[in-house]
Amino acid sequence: MLLHDDRLFPSDPVTRGIARRLYATIRDLPIISPHGHTDPRWFAEDQPFADPATLLVKPDHYIFRMLYSQGVPLEKLGIPRKDGSKVESDPRAIWKLFASHWHLFRGTPSRLWFEHALSSVFGINERLSSDNADRLYDRIAEKLQEPDYRPRALFERFKIEAISTTEGALDDLKWHDMIRASGWGGKVVTAYRPDSVLDPEFEGFAANLEQFGALTGEDVMSWSGYLAAHRQRRDYFRERGATSSDHGHATARTANLSKADAEALFAKVVAGKVSAEEADLFRGQMLTEMAKMSLDDGLVLQIHPGSSRNHNPRLFERFGRDMGADIPVRMEYVAALKPLLDAVGNEPNLTVIAFTLDETTYSRELAPLAGHYPALKLGPGWWFLDAPEAMLRFRELTTETAGFYNTVGFNDDTRAYLSIPARHDVARRCDCAYLARLVAEHRLDEDEAAEVAHDLAYRLAKEAYRL
Amino acid sequence: MLLHDDRLFPSDPVTRGIARRLYATIRDLPIISPHGHTDPRWFAEDQPFADPATLLVKPDHYIFRMLYSQGVPLEKLGIPRKDGSKVESDPRAIWKLFASHWHLFRGTPSRLWFEHALSSVFGINERLSSDNADRLYDRIAEKLQEPDYRPRALFERFKIEAISTTEGALDDLKWHDMIRASGWGGKVVTAYRPDSVLDPEFEGFAANLEQFGALTGEDVMSWSGYLAAHRQRRDYFRERGATSSDHGHATARTANLSKADAEALFAKVVAGKVSAEEADLFRGQMLTEMAKMSLDDGLVLQIHPGSSRNHNPRLFERFGRDMGADIPVRMEYVAALKPLLDAVGNEPNLTVIAFTLDETTYSRELAPLAGHYPALKLGPGWWFLDAPEAMLRFRELTTETAGFYNTVGFNDDTRAYLSIPARHDVARRCDCAYLARLVAEHRLDEDEAAEVAHDLAYRLAKEAYRL
Amino acid sequence: MLLHDDRLFPSDPVTRGIARRLYATIRDLPIISPHGHTDPRWFAEDQPFADPATLLVKPDHYIFRMLYSQGVPLEKLGIPRKDGSKVESDPRAIWKLFASHWHLFRGTPSRLWFEHALSSVFGINERLSSDNADRLYDRIAEKLQEPDYRPRALFERFKIEAISTTEGALDDLKWHDMIRASGWGGKVVTAYRPDSVLDPEFEGFAANLEQFGALTGEDVMSWSGYLAAHRQRRDYFRERGATSSDHGHATARTANLSKADAEALFAKVVAGKVSAEEADLFRGQMLTEMAKMSLDDGLVLQIHPGSSRNHNPRLFERFGRDMGADIPVRMEYVAALKPLLDAVGNEPNLTVIAFTLDETTYSRELAPLAGHYPALKLGPGWWFLDAPEAMLRFRELTTETAGFYNTVGFNDDTRAYLSIPARHDVARRCDCAYLARLVAEHRLDEDEAAEVAHDLAYRLAKEAYRL
Repeated sequence: MLLHDDRLFPSDPVTRGIARRLYATIRDLPIISPHGHTDPRWFAEDQPFADPATLLVKPDHYIFRMLYSQGVPLEKLGIPRKDGSKVESDPRAIWKLFASHWHLFRGTPSRLWFEHALSSVFGINERLSSDNADRLYDRIAEKLQEPDYRPRALFERFKIEAISTTEGALDDLKWHDMIRASGWGGKVVTAYRPDSVLDPEFEGFAANLEQFGALTGEDVMSWSGYLAAHRQRRDYFRERGATSSDHGHATARTANLSKADAEALFAKVVAGKVSAEEADLFRGQMLTEMAKMSLDDGLVLQIHPGSSRNHNPRLFERFGRDMGADIPVRMEYVAALKPLLDAVGNEPNLTVIAFTLDETTYSRELAPLAGHYPALKLGPGWWFLDAPEAMLRFRELTTETAGFYNTVGFNDDTRAYLSIPARHDVARRCDCAYLARLVAEHRLDEDEAAEVAHDLAYRLAKEAYRL
Repeated sequence: MLLHDDRLFPSDPVTRGIARRLYATIRDLPIISPHGHTDPRWFAEDQPFADPATLLVKPDHYIFRMLYSQGVPLEKLGIPRKDGSKVESDPRAIWKLFASHWHLFRGTPSRLWFEHALSSVFGINERLSSDNADRLYDRIAEKLQEPDYRPRALFERFKIEAISTTEGALDDLKWHDMIRASGWGGKVVTAYRPDSVLDPEFEGFAANLEQFGALTGEDVMSWSGYLAAHRQRRDYFRERGATSSDHGHATARTANLSKADAEALFAKVVAGKVSAEEADLFRGQMLTEMAKMSLDDGLVLQIHPGSSRNHNPRLFERFGRDMGADIPVRMEYVAALKPLLDAVGNEPNLTVIAFTLDETTYSRELAPLAGHYPALKLGPGWWFLDAPEAMLRFRELTTETAGFYNTVGFNDDTRAYLSIPARHDVARRCDCAYLARLVAEHRLDEDEAAEVAHDLAYRLAKEAYRL
Repeated sequence: MLLHDDRLFPSDPVTRGIARRLYATIRDLPIISPHGHTDPRWFAEDQPFADPATLLVKPDHYIFRMLYSQGVPLEKLGIPRKDGSKVESDPRAIWKLFASHWHLFRGTPSRLWFEHALSSVFGINERLSSDNADRLYDRIAEKLQEPDYRPRALFERFKIEAISTTEGALDDLKWHDMIRASGWGGKVVTAYRPDSVLDPEFEGFAANLEQFGALTGEDVMSWSGYLAAHRQRRDYFRERGATSSDHGHATARTANLSKADAEALFAKVVAGKVSAEEADLFRGQMLTEMAKMSLDDGLVLQIHPGSSRNHNPRLFERFGRDMGADIPVRMEYVAALKPLLDAVGNEPNLTVIAFTLDETTYSRELAPLAGHYPALKLGPGWWFLDAPEAMLRFRELTTETAGFYNTVGFNDDTRAYLSIPARHDVARRCDCAYLARLVAEHRLDEDEAAEVAHDLAYRLAKEAYRL
């Protein structure tokens, strides 16, 4: 069997026994997925997924990045080129190429997630290899045609109580409307991600801004009109269930300029005349503006900073964004968040959730900040830090200062649909492993650990995100 | 029972067995507390502590910080406001509010320390909760009136062999004089903390400097007189038992200017005309001056850098300093300490102890520096790094390069009196847990581990601090 | 017995059992030592080593650094002074001084390496101490005179399949020629380390450059001639077995200037008129030039950055380089490597191996970079990070993102000949310990773990370095 019942639990029998007992109390809890990138169209149309490669390989940059690092051209994995030139189009060939490199994923989370999907979704309990690639392809492809493998059926099978997608400020949210109109009971909400109309360095910013004005009827070339447009779109998103906004800036910088200075800066932004420094300042100012809007409308503010995007220009030219070439950089939060925290950090009814790709900030900056400011909570391990070892380090590095209750449960943050239950299961197991050690070392009683396990698996995400 | 005999020991039976045996040899060693913030007045007057909230909640920023982060106003915890406006004055109400938030401390060191005090000092072996808050309050309040619970009796019960308080350069040390005059045998020494007359950016620096001159009779507006005043005060402190000075700068920067440059810089300091950069340079210069004075008078130089103090201005305005809003920042030691080390780093009779709030510097900078320079020793985990997981990381990150003998044992660094035995106990247990793993993995023999355990628990602190 | 069969394996019986089984399959594999600093003269002349102190104490900065940090003057350890003044010359006295400080090495890798050498090379299974120092000295001294203890015999006893030394660009490689001419079958290759003719801040750079020209007959004062001289020397080194170049810069900075800009910069270099910034830029440019040459000649490019060399000027004045006063500094790779990666990072046939002394970059920068770029591989823990705890952290911090197959096995990087089998043994044991945990936690199957163990111990180094 691929999936051992005790996977990810420490080997010591006492600790493992505690971990098992804790996990047994939470394994079947519904999934709260408060931040992610699934496609709402899946749930709106509820069409079958095309084939194994299109479902499991092509959209997963954790997977094609690893193959690329070992010399496999992305063309051979069917990743479309911007110039439209030919790439591999046979999903079976892609699948087999992937299978022949399966050893590369030893020790990685992709391995855990993928095998969880194989086993729990498709009932496949053998290790992928060149030898069985064809047979497994057929089995999965066949299943995908069955009604039980359509997006909504899987949603229910996965016990997803609520899931948030992420849409740009200009999105019309038609798939969300279609989901609601369909009468289907699955709770799929959106999140407000305004980078394209907020980051002066975003591709096509000027055109985006114009569209932002057209969409809202506001004079978005004036500072007050621009803010009003955001307020209006936030309301539009909230009406489609949004409970959060999300911001993916290069740094965690925030600012809190006077109205006059903000207006002057915005005028430069509109004129397309900002320096890199001013663009960064503007993004920082907008985080504080968003936080202030949150005071009124209740959206949770998520800050996902610290990725050097599109690090590989040759890849970017050929394939575009999100090709696995986003690399974390060193982060600073203490000075960066100060303007925002000065403005709204003491507000107990505001929730700002900070994430990081730089785990050196956990014990030094983020846990101390989250352990002090009422408005600030600490998001879970994200992206390069979303795997078992990193999850354990997250708890080890933050709990002693911030405790459990200044964290917000788990985020899967994925567009790989089938990995969602796998990721939540890994997070639950890792938290139980951590808690079991605390209990085995007599640092926490088991009844308390069980309560914490439940909180981390379910309650904290639900409450922090108001879902 | 709240306190399990095996707490903090790894669950693996072999390792736990070794840890137990090691710990048994050191558990009853006297406490050397070479750096901390207890109030010497306690020992001078030996009056009963007022009530449970005043003893255990109000002075402990680890505790009220956590409640504040979850939306509890400091006013409700009885923290006095600078404007004198009304705050909660009923200690029982404060205690009950605290008790109702006890779950927040799961997984934190405060939990361990607090329960150790409840159990070992008050004989209370039940978990704090809203249900028993009243009863426990009464029990503690009652005990506090007994002679056995006065500061000196507790000192003896805690087996404190020596404790250092910390006083500012302008302090008259009258409580220390009173302790000595009393004939009581407890060894309570002071430490020289001259920040208020050394840091040009300290609140009231100009007035402090004037007072410094009045107190010493030196011309402290001249560079040579200023240095002479420090020498005089160091002597005054040494006569009250001081064996160390302590310096809490924002960075670890040191400098070693020519006499002419130092004089010119000091003239600007006196004139109140230093830039932020020059203020930092002056603090750095003074660390080297202090090290040079240490060559003569033997005081150990402690450097406690890296906190962004008073990060929350609204809190600072309302409540002042030390309200849990001091946040660590990223540190650099290799270039920062070089001027001081160039000047005195090769002196085998000098002891400079460097601390950090940024554990990323342990393996990269501090262990390599302490593993080379005869004058430099590495202080233990401090503040946000003083809890079990962080203590283990400290050993794991420093031992391979610096060994055990370039470290200096444990510092509790606390003003929470009842937590002192608890903190030392946690440190001893964590060191035994670390050593037990080395033994279980055949990296160290058990007889050697026992010697190291004794050194870490007792000898190294005593020798490094010359107590 | 000093060396327990289970040393470095986790104490938990299940995990230890797996680790034992894995290790049994790789313990006797030959050693691939692709990067190090042994003296080729040893293998050329095959003369006996002089005495225990000269073999084991004096050349090992891990050892004398630790004694120095505790106040032992280097003169007493026989380290020669630059001014020729007298230092201890009695090897027995040095040995005894060392033995009397043996406790300092508790918990350090030196302890493990040294005892491995004592036991496996000299059959000594007692702990070094002042009491047995004389006796052990005699025993080792006696053995060193036997034929079985000469360099080549040890080479064979150590099962070294291939070892790389490191020589400067100006070295005539005569010892390597002599090894080859001798008919001895041991594979000892060189590596091209051109720092002395590439780093404008290297001692004697101008004279070195002249010698570089004389040696190659190229016009090394012109940019094209300078590059041609490097190509010629690389060929000369390749003919003596070199498969790699190595570069020990202060930072990981790379550059990819236009030809005109490179020429202009080189003209300044030749004129001795570069600023510190320009010197750094030139070093960065040369890394990219070297990578481009590697595309042609197949040498693997090793980057060993991040040490602040000769941090202690007093020591440097007295004793020179490599005296244990090189201190790691904070590193940055994401921006630093970008110019080189932009130029050649997508080349699947190029191998660039990045090392670090700053482990905070493992999960944040190096694993993400190595997990993406086909040309980039991640070197193992190096120097301050080459001991058991650090090796485990290396795997824990990199595997989830980069997997095992973007790493390159182990490098001992030592001039301490007798520590080579010990270091490889420690690395193999630590990797088995890590893999055993993955197996025990059902994250990897044991048959796969065995394959990975073999790869990490042997195949990856052999293939990455083309040995």
